[in-house]
Amino acid sequence: MVKANAFYAQSGGVTAVINATACGVLQTAAEHKDVIGKVLVGANGIVGALNEELIDASKESKRAIAGLRTTPGGAFGSCRYKLKPYAEDPREYQRLLDVFKAHNIRYFFYNGGGDSQDTANKVSQLGARVGYPLQCIGVPKTVDNDLPITDCCPGFGSVAKYVAVSTKEAALDIESMCATSTKVFVLEVMGRHAGWIAAAGALAREQAGDPPHIILLPEVPFKQQQFLRRVKATVAEKGFCVVVVSEGVRFANGKFVGESGAAKDAFGHAQLGGVAPVIANLVTSKLGYKNHWAVADYLQRSARHIASATDVEQAYALGRAAVKLAVAGKTAVMPTIVRTNDAPYRWKIGEAKLSRVANIERFMPKSYISKDGFDITPKALRYLRPLIAGEDYPRYKNGVPEYVRLKQQRVAKKLPAKW
Amino acid sequence: MVKANAFYAQSGGVTAVINATACGVLQTAAEHKDVIGKVLVGANGIVGALNEELIDASKESKRAIAGLRTTPGGAFGSCRYKLKPYAEDPREYQRLLDVFKAHNIRYFFYNGGGDSQDTANKVSQLGARVGYPLQCIGVPKTVDNDLPITDCCPGFGSVAKYVAVSTKEAALDIESMCATSTKVFVLEVMGRHAGWIAAAGALAREQAGDPPHIILLPEVPFKQQQFLRRVKATVAEKGFCVVVVSEGVRFANGKFVGESGAAKDAFGHAQLGGVAPVIANLVTSKLGYKNHWAVADYLQRSARHIASATDVEQAYALGRAAVKLAVAGKTAVMPTIVRTNDAPYRWKIGEAKLSRVANIERFMPKSYISKDGFDITPKALRYLRPLIAGEDYPRYKNGVPEYVRLKQQRVAKKLPAKW
Repeated sequence: MVKANAFYAQSGGVTAVINATACGVLQTAAEHKDVIGKVLVGANGIVGALNEELIDASKESKRAIAGLRTTPGGAFGSCRYKLKPYAEDPREYQRLLDVFKAHNIRYFFYNGGGDSQDTANKVSQLGARVGYPLQCIGVPKTVDNDLPITDCCPGFGSVAKYVAVSTKEAALDIESMCATSTKVFVLEVMGRHAGWIAAAGALAREQAGDPPHIILLPEVPFKQQQFLRRVKATVAEKGFCVVVVSEGVRFANGKFVGESGAAKDAFGHAQLGGVAPVIANLVTSKLGYKNHWAVADYLQRSARHIASATDVEQAYALGRAAVKLAVAGKTAVMPTIVRTNDAPYRWKIGEAKLSRVANIERFMPKSYISKDGFDITPKALRYLRPLIAGEDYPRYKNGVPEYVRLKQQRVAKKLPAKW
Repeated sequence: MVKANAFYAQSGGVTAVINATACGVLQTAAEHKDVIGKVLVGANGIVGALNEELIDASKESKRAIAGLRTTPGGAFGSCRYKLKPYAEDPREYQRLLDVFKAHNIRYFFYNGGGDSQDTANKVSQLGARVGYPLQCIGVPKTVDNDLPITDCCPGFGSVAKYVAVSTKEAALDIESMCATSTKVFVLEVMGRHAGWIAAAGALAREQAGDPPHIILLPEVPFKQQQFLRRVKATVAEKGFCVVVVSEGVRFANGKFVGESGAAKDAFGHAQLGGVAPVIANLVTSKLGYKNHWAVADYLQRSARHIASATDVEQAYALGRAAVKLAVAGKTAVMPTIVRTNDAPYRWKIGEAKLSRVANIERFMPKSYISKDGFDITPKALRYLRPLIAGEDYPRYKNGVPEYVRLKQQRVAKKLPAKW
């Protein structure tokens, strides 16, 4: 193998552990100096490659690189940017090739979800198309847990833990208050299409009947009357009701429940989003119960302070595996998590072809959703439970976590800015 | 001193550490068996006394009592219930007296915020009025940090830590995304009248200029144009803007910014609350930036998993001090936190008369608010910083915190249910 540089970038919505994957990539690349020279990191994902904005990872201290393992967000910047098919716009691909050639990049690691694996797949075809030796490895990441083939996706375990812990804590709060005050609490979590994150709310339970009492998934059309009956019965029995709702829950006609067309706020602007307030208002107006609601949004996916140790370990291992695959001469593949046992939980690293991963979303299977559609099954719990196991606390200073900041020193540009 | 039973109850919005105070009360009472018999706990606050729903704390295991120190919410149930003045409705007071006499209760510990201290104060007057020997001790608690005299209120340090940590983490998230996507993040936190909780967002910063870039306090009337200019300038300079907003922020005319009278949701119901979406929509409609917003609600005040060790210690110490005051023969007082040094932080326990505490709200002083009204001052930071110091993690089982559940065994009733 000829020694060459590697490109790495972070793409799509970031997570509490995507930097742990970066840490795995960078530390493992450093172990293979015979074949991998520098790792040049795209500032803000693939956009950094297109703009020749490359960060020289070798300029970061070993301490900073190690600190990535406990730092949330995307330390090199991420992007929402999808390459068009080659036939539609070959210029982008030509530019990528120019940048790779100019910086002697022959390894390409792209760290993201379904769209990002599509990008990695397209770039892998580019190398073959023009006869430029480029090894493309996709590295999985997404809180949505919706990549196919891999048993789970790094980032999900930590958001699942956040949702389970938050649900458990908020449930204790409302239980304390319900005798004379709030009766219904609604927590909105991410998941535009797949309900994995909302499902994780069920991990808050110690035993059957514990909160959350209702889980609303995007896979199940929202039925208002059945939902209200369930809330009423729960309050009658327990004194309070905790609901975890996916942002992506829809009516049978496909419309998002959170989309409230007629809403205008105090400034006269259309009200955007938030299914939790809509569900909470519905409950109060129809049943009269006082409600509280929360929208976790970015807090859930950036909550490194409550990350799952299992998730951190897998995120790191997948970054490490990606480099090992490249060094082994592989291309157009993505390392995966293969579960070999539920309890005790055992897993190993596998691999999948990018062509089988790109643009495919994995939803909650029917066997994971209870018959009435308001809960998950024991099978789903068995799948989810090990993913939140273990705590992996960051270091603290002055009462807040000590997260690393990188120097992000750019490599000198060699190409014209315009292309 | 004659040996008698004690009454303890939790009141008002619960916190991550009110049970640590309960733990302090119960463990310390057990050290004074010569004067304190059983501790009978009101189920759901003072309502438990009125309904003669008394929990026998002696039936709980030592392990469960110890576990209260790391369990959020109100383990005995709380209430939102305010006693009317004696002159308006003496029946409630007569009933309380009947219950106290029936159960030989001569110590009264009431754990709550301003309203609850008012209740404790009224009850203390009752004893004197009818010649029944009753020692009434208020025990402070409120995430709002708005009790007078005490340097800080238990519950606040932990919610402050939650807000600081969450702001820091979410800021790393948006910073990663801002090149091609979201530019403004708005986090709504509690604080209907006082801005202490929102102010704590500033503790996320390592250095000046770090996020949060704007803090909106209830003490400062919301000025739309200045706010938008500040957001625009921040995005121009930093690439993104993080806003922490108090739920209680108001326009100059006193109207809550979060109150959107005209709003109707998908079901045609009036939209209730949430200032974060209103602020976020304002930014997007006027400046065009993509936004994300979160409403922390109960998550912030129940987040025992990220409690401040300082707060936990003070919550426990105040429970302990309350019993010590009673044993020393005091009544109509509340133990307080007295700060003796900022850095290194040093504090001791003091005491305040209930009559000087009840119904008085402490707002952020002017010297804590920056001139432009969008930030806090170094003086405020000096005050806030030590309150979030230290971590005090609960134990975990199956990936979630192991919080105790009490048996809550009731004492046999001796009085008619009707009164």
